[in-house]
Amino acid sequence: MNFISDNVVGASDKILAAIAAANAGTAGSYGADEWTARVEQQLNAFFEREVTVFMVTTGTAANALAAAAICPPWGALLTHRESHVIDDECGAPEFYMGGAKLTGLPGTGGKLTPEIIEAHIANEPGGTRRPPIKGLSIAQGTEFGLVYSAAEIAALTAAAKAHGLRVHMDGARFSNALVALGCTPAEMTWKAGIDVLSLGGTKNGCLMAEAVVFFDPALAEDFRFKRKRAGQTLSKQRLISAQFEAFLDGDHWRDLARHSNAMAARLTAGLAPLPHVRLGWPQQINQVFPIVSQGLWAHLTDAGVKCIDWSETSLSPDNPAGADEVVLRLVTSFRTTTDDIDRLVSLMAGYRGNS
Amino acid sequence: MNFISDNVVGASDKILAAIAAANAGTAGSYGADEWTARVEQQLNAFFEREVTVFMVTTGTAANALAAAAICPPWGALLTHRESHVIDDECGAPEFYMGGAKLTGLPGTGGKLTPEIIEAHIANEPGGTRRPPIKGLSIAQGTEFGLVYSAAEIAALTAAAKAHGLRVHMDGARFSNALVALGCTPAEMTWKAGIDVLSLGGTKNGCLMAEAVVFFDPALAEDFRFKRKRAGQTLSKQRLISAQFEAFLDGDHWRDLARHSNAMAARLTAGLAPLPHVRLGWPQQINQVFPIVSQGLWAHLTDAGVKCIDWSETSLSPDNPAGADEVVLRLVTSFRTTTDDIDRLVSLMAGYRGNS
Amino acid sequence: MNFISDNVVGASDKILAAIAAANAGTAGSYGADEWTARVEQQLNAFFEREVTVFMVTTGTAANALAAAAICPPWGALLTHRESHVIDDECGAPEFYMGGAKLTGLPGTGGKLTPEIIEAHIANEPGGTRRPPIKGLSIAQGTEFGLVYSAAEIAALTAAAKAHGLRVHMDGARFSNALVALGCTPAEMTWKAGIDVLSLGGTKNGCLMAEAVVFFDPALAEDFRFKRKRAGQTLSKQRLISAQFEAFLDGDHWRDLARHSNAMAARLTAGLAPLPHVRLGWPQQINQVFPIVSQGLWAHLTDAGVKCIDWSETSLSPDNPAGADEVVLRLVTSFRTTTDDIDRLVSLMAGYRGNS
Amino acid sequence: MNFISDNVVGASDKILAAIAAANAGTAGSYGADEWTARVEQQLNAFFEREVTVFMVTTGTAANALAAAAICPPWGALLTHRESHVIDDECGAPEFYMGGAKLTGLPGTGGKLTPEIIEAHIANEPGGTRRPPIKGLSIAQGTEFGLVYSAAEIAALTAAAKAHGLRVHMDGARFSNALVALGCTPAEMTWKAGIDVLSLGGTKNGCLMAEAVVFFDPALAEDFRFKRKRAGQTLSKQRLISAQFEAFLDGDHWRDLARHSNAMAARLTAGLAPLPHVRLGWPQQINQVFPIVSQGLWAHLTDAGVKCIDWSETSLSPDNPAGADEVVLRLVTSFRTTTDDIDRLVSLMAGYRGNS
Repeated sequence: MNFISDNVVGASDKILAAIAAANAGTAGSYGADEWTARVEQQLNAFFEREVTVFMVTTGTAANALAAAAICPPWGALLTHRESHVIDDECGAPEFYMGGAKLTGLPGTGGKLTPEIIEAHIANEPGGTRRPPIKGLSIAQGTEFGLVYSAAEIAALTAAAKAHGLRVHMDGARFSNALVALGCTPAEMTWKAGIDVLSLGGTKNGCLMAEAVVFFDPALAEDFRFKRKRAGQTLSKQRLISAQFEAFLDGDHWRDLARHSNAMAARLTAGLAPLPHVRLGWPQQINQVFPIVSQGLWAHLTDAGVKCIDWSETSLSPDNPAGADEVVLRLVTSFRTTTDDIDRLVSLMAGYRGNS
Repeated sequence: MNFISDNVVGASDKILAAIAAANAGTAGSYGADEWTARVEQQLNAFFEREVTVFMVTTGTAANALAAAAICPPWGALLTHRESHVIDDECGAPEFYMGGAKLTGLPGTGGKLTPEIIEAHIANEPGGTRRPPIKGLSIAQGTEFGLVYSAAEIAALTAAAKAHGLRVHMDGARFSNALVALGCTPAEMTWKAGIDVLSLGGTKNGCLMAEAVVFFDPALAEDFRFKRKRAGQTLSKQRLISAQFEAFLDGDHWRDLARHSNAMAARLTAGLAPLPHVRLGWPQQINQVFPIVSQGLWAHLTDAGVKCIDWSETSLSPDNPAGADEVVLRLVTSFRTTTDDIDRLVSLMAGYRGNS
Repeated sequence: MNFISDNVVGASDKILAAIAAANAGTAGSYGADEWTARVEQQLNAFFEREVTVFMVTTGTAANALAAAAICPPWGALLTHRESHVIDDECGAPEFYMGGAKLTGLPGTGGKLTPEIIEAHIANEPGGTRRPPIKGLSIAQGTEFGLVYSAAEIAALTAAAKAHGLRVHMDGARFSNALVALGCTPAEMTWKAGIDVLSLGGTKNGCLMAEAVVFFDPALAEDFRFKRKRAGQTLSKQRLISAQFEAFLDGDHWRDLARHSNAMAARLTAGLAPLPHVRLGWPQQINQVFPIVSQGLWAHLTDAGVKCIDWSETSLSPDNPAGADEVVLRLVTSFRTTTDDIDRLVSLMAGYRGNS
Repeated sequence: MNFISDNVVGASDKILAAIAAANAGTAGSYGADEWTARVEQQLNAFFEREVTVFMVTTGTAANALAAAAICPPWGALLTHRESHVIDDECGAPEFYMGGAKLTGLPGTGGKLTPEIIEAHIANEPGGTRRPPIKGLSIAQGTEFGLVYSAAEIAALTAAAKAHGLRVHMDGARFSNALVALGCTPAEMTWKAGIDVLSLGGTKNGCLMAEAVVFFDPALAEDFRFKRKRAGQTLSKQRLISAQFEAFLDGDHWRDLARHSNAMAARLTAGLAPLPHVRLGWPQQINQVFPIVSQGLWAHLTDAGVKCIDWSETSLSPDNPAGADEVVLRLVTSFRTTTDDIDRLVSLMAGYRGNS
């Protein structure tokens, strides 16, 4: 049982079939193909407005290109101090931004608040000691499995825009967050003030499908050159576009995300009665973060369960991890089965090392 | 009939089937999967030595990452003045190298010679007016369809190394060049002094399969970080690795390249008797560059033939294009049929506008 | 006799005295001082309009910062193929621009024309193969001692602006060009369409005084951050500002430049009767470029004359250098004496090696 | 009375005279002059070994160039989280390093310890989520006026080198630290494991004199190109070199630093009896950081004392600032007089607002 990430599985059957179907015949290179044209229309409908979209190959590239679209080389980009962009992308945003500064802010569960942003800006020394703050990047959901409500996003972007910042949303698990909130894509993005979105498909049933979606056309200027220069313009772009087409068609993304979220909820429900397990943060999407003893983790590992431990820095002060404890990250996917979950719960329930 | 590029078609059946087969089950992310491990072994055998290989998503990324591996931000990289890296990648090498200078040198048919390199270096002013020259990038085959013999490559790398340069080979059409020369991969690369290779699969039957292959392990140091930072590390890397596995298995690459080269040779043979058509450069791989009248080009376009015109700068002085003439680029692929070729020859033969 | 450059001498007495006078007392750091405030007023008067000015330490930094102000990392900047920015600054513009491409265009004597710019732009392939052209950088005077007339500058900037380009002027020898033309600073810059100027003082009597002058306020946005980030914001900026104050006061710059230009004119007049000497380009500022035999150059060197040879690439086709000939660069300064010139002429006149 | 910084005053008489003396005659440009040659010899003697030295114009440039010499674009550089390089240079290190990551570590008074470094490295997640750590930059003295002993430096560099890191010392106030420790320059640098030093003269009596000093020749490779590319190679470099020559001659630097340190010590002694004033950190060099009430600060401001408030983040937990308190930074210079100090002490002693 592999709960290391939602990227350890391949693509859904429907999406794999779409790749195969798109393989025949000749097509224009570099995005001048019919699949891409159709996906652009689908995304306009999905977001209930005209958007400008650029398909890319990885979430890291999507985030880094989007960061560079809102923050120039001489600027600073605010983000959570344990966000994926600052901590897990090996400096890709700094590279793509041309040496701009990523500034990490605190916040429980990876979530920022208007107050945190205001406090940081109020504390700036003035003059030219620090680069001017140009943008804000938030993750929906966070590295700790939490989602912002649409109202929370709107409050954050309002605070940011009051200081002239542009706002990026890292939507590597956009589908999962959307299903969790039950709102529309528009409500979770541009209606709440988001300027540019990294839209992820790979973690939710595609093999490789990521996109940068612009709601502010001005930010998309020259972006086709920026994508090419980044080595992110596929000659046979139908490979990505066909996946997105199937992903969006008939709300396939929703079915996939509902399933993975439901598996995480089932796991959460299964763990609730266990006295020796508590969660680091509430389960909201397809990630569960139980705080357990080192012994329990070893017990799971011995039983063949694969998962990794996670940072404790962003735990709530009310809910710290003990010296012998570890925060586990368990990620479910569209392929996780109820049987997987039930076996995992059973393993955790059966552990007797803590008694 | 689409002769615009070898990237207008999808993948071969075998390679598409490999993608589908690799889709099942869980696998380690970011290259920690069995397909990748097997491809690494295949490439060791292919090159008859241990190589260090990193799969990436585009030829542009492969070239730019390789360029950055041999040329630091404060250096200069020599290349042909009409090479793909200097002219067709939208500044990607400059971006990846962190602002290094690409210096373009002349040469008929896109080919450099030791004399051209020596003359350039001898003409450097000294002091710190110019960045120090650190590397050389050559294309095999060139933008004009020519290949270097193994001896020519060895002479070039010897000249470069006499001045401390590292040498990169852009092998976007590596298979086609190899089939044209009839030598081994080792003879065309490390045995001839190549330090790092961009190995292309996309133009020869894959959907998206490119790799950076290091023959000098020192150049590969930290490369896994560089690839990640470039947004080129796929979470589901089996997508690429499975394609390469099928590409290399049973010399599938050779069958594909032989076919596309043969189609170009058939076209060349068909055009040879035509008095109103001559070639800009000899046909060696899967590209044919007839010099024709504007009228003939229009005639082809009207008949549904898709192709583009090409630069005349690197024609031999003995074989210039006339004022009313254009150099066409006709690219064949693994899917081009003899019927396609014969119809094209027939169209060109039947043109009467020049009489 | 040292004719290698106008930077081999120190500062004029007046400028040196200004440094000494500015040394006393305390003053605000990083430009918040009275000398800087006064220079800003002087430059407004000098240019007959409000300008935004930033003092920096070298002409290379001024050019590179100005280039970055008109060309983003993903763009291309047009310039003459033998301009100082492309050929003599060791890649500083590429570094400051964050990896943008400098594209070199031909032109006799280092001068571009609207036709050359139009031809280049018309030849662009479209799509995303090349970075978008964003700016034009011209030198006044050129590396070959020529100046553009105000009308020529206006024609160039009109051509550039028709394609959306911003225009930079490298004014390392701005004073010399101004004296040569006899027009006003305004006529030679913003009235002729220049957006940003590198204003040089170092080559004309200062020890170290360079400035970036913006005529378009929009381009100056965030520039104080960019200068700081470049390590070009002096804590004791009065060091530079005091020099500029003395340089501008009472048109000291004009007296200095008139002298150095006059010395070059005297040299030109002295060489005119010599049958074995001709000029590569007309003398217009403080540089003279005689085409002489290798023997004559050796003769001068033996007599203690210091100068360097120069590129022949931008000679007019009507006036090539022979196989045994060399183009010398002789630069005069505010300290060059009539005696220096007369001795040099005498030495060249007395050479008998060519007979 | 201006205690804002040691950069609000000009140069010492001796150093100003040296500039004037160096102004006459012709000299080679770009450092090929006799003053530079002499300074290089002086520094060899100063450091008791052969060093490689490059003069530059600002401390920011020195630090950023040095950072780039020990950390490649894809790496991470450790430093204190409130160091000058991370917090006061507007992103210059990130720019010069080409997008590398500056990672801030905690530590009282701006000082790092081997334990802090070890703990950070031990906590790295592995894989390619983070850039590889390549270097360490420490400040001597720190932003909070503290100095490392030679033994402390040696312990830090040993910890760094055990993990393959190179070590840079920011010596903007090198002279002050050296006088405080009473050791030799060699003991405080290369004998303690420092690889590269930013040697500051500007804050200790020069107008503009900074240098990058390499103790490891391998790190200096290509540095002349890097300096030129950064726009930091002065054509009339004697301007800087002459200052350094006078600075080093007869231990002028020591006299200057002894004076400014003594003025800070006198201030510290004067404040010691005052019940309403305590220091944030011990006084060791030419900076004093009293923690005072907002009322006292206003009292000083009203009396014409200029100074700024400083960060409280790096106070010891045992000595926090209260809600109504502020940490002042008072910097003395070579021109500060005993009268300045005594008047300041008197003003602070006379304040009655706290009673």
